[in-house]
Amino acid sequence: MWLLLRPEVTAADIEPALRVRGWPYEVRQLGGRAIVVVQANGQAPAEAASWREVERVIMEGEEHPTLVYAAEGTYSLGNWRRGDSLLWIAGPCSVESRSQLLSTARALRDLGVTALRGGAFKARTSPYSFQGLGEKAIDLLLEAKAETGLPLCVEVLSEKHLPRYENIDILQIGARNMDHYELLKAAGAMHKPVLLKRNPQATLTEFLFAAEYLLLYGAPVVILCERGIRTYERRLRYTLDVGGIAVLRSEVGLPVIADPSHAAGEAAYVEALSLAAIGAGAEGLIVEVHPDPPAAKSDARQQLTFEAFAHLKAKADRLWATLHDTATPALNAKGVS
Amino acid sequence: MWLLLRPEVTAADIEPALRVRGWPYEVRQLGGRAIVVVQANGQAPAEAASWREVERVIMEGEEHPTLVYAAEGTYSLGNWRRGDSLLWIAGPCSVESRSQLLSTARALRDLGVTALRGGAFKARTSPYSFQGLGEKAIDLLLEAKAETGLPLCVEVLSEKHLPRYENIDILQIGARNMDHYELLKAAGAMHKPVLLKRNPQATLTEFLFAAEYLLLYGAPVVILCERGIRTYERRLRYTLDVGGIAVLRSEVGLPVIADPSHAAGEAAYVEALSLAAIGAGAEGLIVEVHPDPPAAKSDARQQLTFEAFAHLKAKADRLWATLHDTATPALNAKGVS
Amino acid sequence: MWLLLRPEVTAADIEPALRVRGWPYEVRQLGGRAIVVVQANGQAPAEAASWREVERVIMEGEEHPTLVYAAEGTYSLGNWRRGDSLLWIAGPCSVESRSQLLSTARALRDLGVTALRGGAFKARTSPYSFQGLGEKAIDLLLEAKAETGLPLCVEVLSEKHLPRYENIDILQIGARNMDHYELLKAAGAMHKPVLLKRNPQATLTEFLFAAEYLLLYGAPVVILCERGIRTYERRLRYTLDVGGIAVLRSEVGLPVIADPSHAAGEAAYVEALSLAAIGAGAEGLIVEVHPDPPAAKSDARQQLTFEAFAHLKAKADRLWATLHDTATPALNAKGVS
Amino acid sequence: MWLLLRPEVTAADIEPALRVRGWPYEVRQLGGRAIVVVQANGQAPAEAASWREVERVIMEGEEHPTLVYAAEGTYSLGNWRRGDSLLWIAGPCSVESRSQLLSTARALRDLGVTALRGGAFKARTSPYSFQGLGEKAIDLLLEAKAETGLPLCVEVLSEKHLPRYENIDILQIGARNMDHYELLKAAGAMHKPVLLKRNPQATLTEFLFAAEYLLLYGAPVVILCERGIRTYERRLRYTLDVGGIAVLRSEVGLPVIADPSHAAGEAAYVEALSLAAIGAGAEGLIVEVHPDPPAAKSDARQQLTFEAFAHLKAKADRLWATLHDTATPALNAKGVS
Repeated sequence: MWLLLRPEVTAADIEPALRVRGWPYEVRQLGGRAIVVVQANGQAPAEAASWREVERVIMEGEEHPTLVYAAEGTYSLGNWRRGDSLLWIAGPCSVESRSQLLSTARALRDLGVTALRGGAFKARTSPYSFQGLGEKAIDLLLEAKAETGLPLCVEVLSEKHLPRYENIDILQIGARNMDHYELLKAAGAMHKPVLLKRNPQATLTEFLFAAEYLLLYGAPVVILCERGIRTYERRLRYTLDVGGIAVLRSEVGLPVIADPSHAAGEAAYVEALSLAAIGAGAEGLIVEVHPDPPAAKSDARQQLTFEAFAHLKAKADRLWATLHDTATPALNAKGVS
Repeated sequence: MWLLLRPEVTAADIEPALRVRGWPYEVRQLGGRAIVVVQANGQAPAEAASWREVERVIMEGEEHPTLVYAAEGTYSLGNWRRGDSLLWIAGPCSVESRSQLLSTARALRDLGVTALRGGAFKARTSPYSFQGLGEKAIDLLLEAKAETGLPLCVEVLSEKHLPRYENIDILQIGARNMDHYELLKAAGAMHKPVLLKRNPQATLTEFLFAAEYLLLYGAPVVILCERGIRTYERRLRYTLDVGGIAVLRSEVGLPVIADPSHAAGEAAYVEALSLAAIGAGAEGLIVEVHPDPPAAKSDARQQLTFEAFAHLKAKADRLWATLHDTATPALNAKGVS
Repeated sequence: MWLLLRPEVTAADIEPALRVRGWPYEVRQLGGRAIVVVQANGQAPAEAASWREVERVIMEGEEHPTLVYAAEGTYSLGNWRRGDSLLWIAGPCSVESRSQLLSTARALRDLGVTALRGGAFKARTSPYSFQGLGEKAIDLLLEAKAETGLPLCVEVLSEKHLPRYENIDILQIGARNMDHYELLKAAGAMHKPVLLKRNPQATLTEFLFAAEYLLLYGAPVVILCERGIRTYERRLRYTLDVGGIAVLRSEVGLPVIADPSHAAGEAAYVEALSLAAIGAGAEGLIVEVHPDPPAAKSDARQQLTFEAFAHLKAKADRLWATLHDTATPALNAKGVS
Repeated sequence: MWLLLRPEVTAADIEPALRVRGWPYEVRQLGGRAIVVVQANGQAPAEAASWREVERVIMEGEEHPTLVYAAEGTYSLGNWRRGDSLLWIAGPCSVESRSQLLSTARALRDLGVTALRGGAFKARTSPYSFQGLGEKAIDLLLEAKAETGLPLCVEVLSEKHLPRYENIDILQIGARNMDHYELLKAAGAMHKPVLLKRNPQATLTEFLFAAEYLLLYGAPVVILCERGIRTYERRLRYTLDVGGIAVLRSEVGLPVIADPSHAAGEAAYVEALSLAAIGAGAEGLIVEVHPDPPAAKSDARQQLTFEAFAHLKAKADRLWATLHDTATPALNAKGVS
C-alpha cells in the first residue's frame, strides 16, 4: 500500500508507528509532501487509514490516478511563476552544432523564454534518419546553459542515458515514451521536474496515470503537455486536443502546456495552434525554433525562425494577459472597447 | 461544363455567344458573380476557356472544390460586418414554447448578438426523443424576429420542409446532413446564406465540397462551421478541430465559425472551446443558450444560461479585439504590459 | 408512448381498450408483430403496461433501442434463407447503360446471387462527379429484374424519390444517410425490407437507433450493413469494423452483412475483407461488380470483374460452409485433417 | 550508408574492397543475408552501388522501409513451418505462480500450440496494478520450457532486462514499446526472432519502420502482430485492423499474425476476431489462456479457459485449412457442397 501524507506532516512523523509494527517501508517526496510505500497487508490498510497524518491509503489495484489530484498548485521555474505569465520553453528540435545551439539560446534568452529545449538522443521513425548528436549534444546544452543561464529541458529516450542528465533541469518524456513505464519509474527517481508529453493515442486517464508513475517514483512536479492526438483528420500532422487541455486544467493541479510545433507539423500553423491552446487554458508552450529551419536535420518544416517566434511570443503573451486581466472592463457588443 | 465568370462581368455578356453555338445553358449567381451551367462537349470547353469573360471552366470529374476559393471575402449580416467583430449566433437548441423563445431572443438582442438560432425540426438519435415543434416553432421564430429584429438561423432537415423557410434568414445544414447532397442542392437553390456544419467524420476537402454544392446551386455565401470531429477521445462529446479552423481560414475566402456547444457537450467547457476556436482564427460562434438549461427538452447539459453566455460573450469579444488590434504595443517578456 | 405487442397478438386485440379510453392511436407492423403509437400521458403508460397483450411500453425519452432486440430471427429473401447460406447482393456501383446492367445481372444470376444492386441516384462527394442516371436507371433495373428474376436492392437518396421505388424490393439507406432521420421515417413507411449501412462515424448504438427508426415507422426487417469506419488508418479507404459485426451478431436479432467494396476501396483487398467479415460472423455481403471496372463512371478502383467475383463467391461460400458445418470432425494440431 | 548484399553472397566477399578503400564498416545478418554498415560519404555510395554483390545501397534519410521487403518468405519455429499451418502462441497474460504456468503449458502442449507466452515484467497503465513477477517469472517460464519443450515468447519492457532473456526464444515487443527505438536496437542485437506488436496509433509504415530497426540491428526475423488500433469505436477495447493484416500480407515477406485477446478485451469476442483475422490473411494467433480467468491478476476479462481455447483452435485450424486447401472443389451457389 501507499500512504499519501497530509501536506503539513513529514514521513518522520509516522516512521515510529511503521517501525513498531515491523512494516517495511520506503519514503518518497511528492513536491512538498511525502508518500510512503509500505509492505503490509491484512488489517494494515484500515489501521493506517485511521492515522491522522495520512490523507489517503492507496491500495494495489487502485483504478484511478490519485497523486495527480493531490499535487499542489504553485510552481516556479527560472523566471516563470505559475499564474504570472506563460511558461515558454523553446529551442531546436535537435542540437546540431555549437553555433546553431548557442545562437538560438542567446536569441531566446533575449526574448525572455524560461527554458531552452534541444534534442540530444532523438526518437526517429526511420533508423536511417539523423539520430541526434547524443552525449555531445548534452555537453553543448550545458555550455548554452552556462552562458545564458537558461534552464534546460531535454528529452530522455532510455533509462541507460539517465546518468548523463544529472545537470539537466527538466527531464522531457516524449509522446512515444509516455507509456514506457520503466523509463517513467527511473526518470521519477531522478527527483527532477518532468515535462510529460501525451501519447497521441492516450486517453486523459492514461495520460494522468503516466504522470502518477512519475510522481509516485519521486518527480516533484510533472508538467503535462498536450501535443496533438492522432485522428482521421490528417491535413495537419495531429489534432491538437484543446478540449483535453481544458479538462486537465479543470480537474488536476499540475501545470498544463501545449506543443503546437508537433501538432501542426508546419510552421505556418504553429501560431494558430498556440493561440488556440492558450484560449483553452494552456499555461505555457514548448516551441521548436531554429536559426535556419529549412537546413534543420529533423522537423525542418515545423521549426520557427527567430523572427516568427518573436512575433508569436508577443502575440501569445498579449493574449494570455488579456485572458487573465480581470481588471479589463467589459467590451461593448461590437467587440471593441 | 460550368463556366465561372470573372467578377466584373454578367451572364448577359456571354449569352449571345452561347446562343449562337446552340449550347443549352442555365445561369446561377455566386454572391456577386455568375456561374453558367452549359450542356456542351467536344471542343466547347477549350473554346469557352478562351473567352475573356470566363475565369475558369470546370469540367465533369473535377477533383477539387473551386467555387469555395473564388468566394469573395466581405460579408455582412445584420449588425455584423466581417472583420469588425465576432459573428454571434445564439439561441436554444430547440424551440420549446413561446415564452422560452421570446425571453431568450430579448436577452440575446440586449447582449448584442447578430442572429437567433432555434431548432424547429430536430434530428435526434433516438426516435423516442423530442423531435421538435416543427411548423409551430417556425411561427414562433418569426414572431421573435418581428419583435427583436434579430435575423433567424434555423436548421433544415429535409427538402420537403424548405417551403416553410422562406422567411428564415440563414439556412442551417446540420452536421448529420452535410453530405446529404439532395438537400444541399435544394437549400442552395433557395438563394439564401447557409450555415454549413462539418460532419464529424468529414475531411476538410469533403467539407469544402459540400459548400461547393451549395454555392453551385445558388447560395450567395456559405458560413463554414467546425463543431467537433469524432475521435478516440470521448471525454468531451467531440474533439474541436482547431487545426481545421486554421487551415480553412488560411485557404478559403468563406467565413469560418465554430460551435463550441456541440463539441463540448457540457456547459462547463463551452467557454474554453470558444476561446480556443477564436485563438485558432474563428470569426464567430454559434452557441446554445436557454433560460433554464436543466429543463431543456434537448441538449440540457450543454446549453448556457443567459448569465454564462453574457460572461462568455464579453470575454470572447475582448479576446478577439486583442488579437485583431494591430495598434497594441508589444508586451514585455513577462507577458504583461 | 409506443406499445410493443407480444408476438401472438394483433392490434385488434387491444383496439377496444384504446377506444374506450379515448386514446388516439395508430398501428404499425414490425415484421410479424404490431407496434401501437398512442397519444396518452399521465397514468396511461402504467395502465397499458399491465395489459397482457403488451410486451413493453416505450416512453418518450427512452435511451436505448428496443425494437431491434425484439426483431425475429428468421428471414428469407429470393433464394436466400437465413442460416442456410450467405446472402449475396451484387451489381455495379452505378447503373450506366442497358448493356452494362443486363450483362452484369445475367452473370450474377448465373453465379447464384440473391439480389442485384445498382445505383440510380448517386451521392457523390463532388458536385462535378457523375450523379447517376436517376429515373432512367430505375427503369433499367426493373427491366433487369423482369429478365433475371433477381430482386433489386437500390439506394434511396431523398424522400422525394421514394414514389419511384415502389417496385424495388430492398431499399438501401447509404452510409451518408444513416442519420438522415426524415428519410428513415419515410423509407420505413414504405413497408419494405431495408438495407441500412452504418455511417463511418456511428457508434453501434447510433447505428441501432437508425434501425429502430426504420422498424418503428414500418420496415418489416432491417439488414444491418457494416461498411468500414473512419479511423486514423487511411491506407485502405475505411477500417472494416469486424468487432462491430461480432457485437451486432451477438446482441441483436437482425441480419448483419458487410460491404467489403467500400471498406477496401481497392479491388485487390475486397476478397480479404470479405473473408474477414464472414469470420467475424457476417451473414452476407454486398459487393460491387462491373463488366469493365476501369471504365466505370464511379468507384472504378473497387469494383470486381465477373471473374474475380466468381472466385470470391466460391471461396466465401466454402468458408461459410466450413464455419457452419457442425458435422466436420475436429482437425489435428497441424491444421489439416 | 548501409549495403544490403544479395542473398547468395557473404560479407566476406566485399570486405577486401571495403578495407582497400579504408572505409570503416560493421557486418550484420538479416536472416540468411548480410547488411554492411559503412562509414563513408562522397562518391562512396555510387561506387558501392556498382558492385555486383550489393543489392541496394541505403542512404541516411531514406524515407521508406527497405529490409522488411527484402526479408525472406520461409520460416519455421518449433513445430510450425510457415505455410503448413497456423502459428499458435498461447499462455497467460502474466505468470502468476508455478502451478498456474505449468498447468497452462501442459494443456497448451497437448493442444499442439507452437510456443508458450507469459508476462514476466508487465507494462500496466496504473502504477498500482500488478507489475509482474519479474525475474522469478523468467525462471518459471524456463522451467515450463524444460518440461514441455515449448519455445518461449516473452515481452521485453526495458533494455536493462535483456540479459535475463538469453534463453527466451522469441522476444516480444509490446504495442506500447513499438516506437521505443532504443529498445528495438538492443532487442535486435540479441539476434533472436522478435514478435513485434503494432502500436494502436501506428500507421502501417511506422509499424514497418519499427520492424526495420529490428532487422537492421540484427533480428533474423520479425513476426508482425496486429492487435487492434485505437478508434472512436470503443465498444470493444480496440478495433482489429483486418485491412492492415491484408495489406501487410500483400506487401511484405515477414510473417503476419494477430492478437485477438487485446483487440477484443472480452473473452466472448476472441473467437470472432480470431476467425476474422485468419479470413484477412493472418498466419497465426497469439492468444491469452488462463486456468481460471476470473482469478487472473491482469486481463481477467479477456483470457480464455483451456476449453474455450481448444474450441477456438479446432475451429480456426479448420478455417485455415479450408482457405489454403486448393484441392477443394468449388461449391454450388447455395454455399454447401
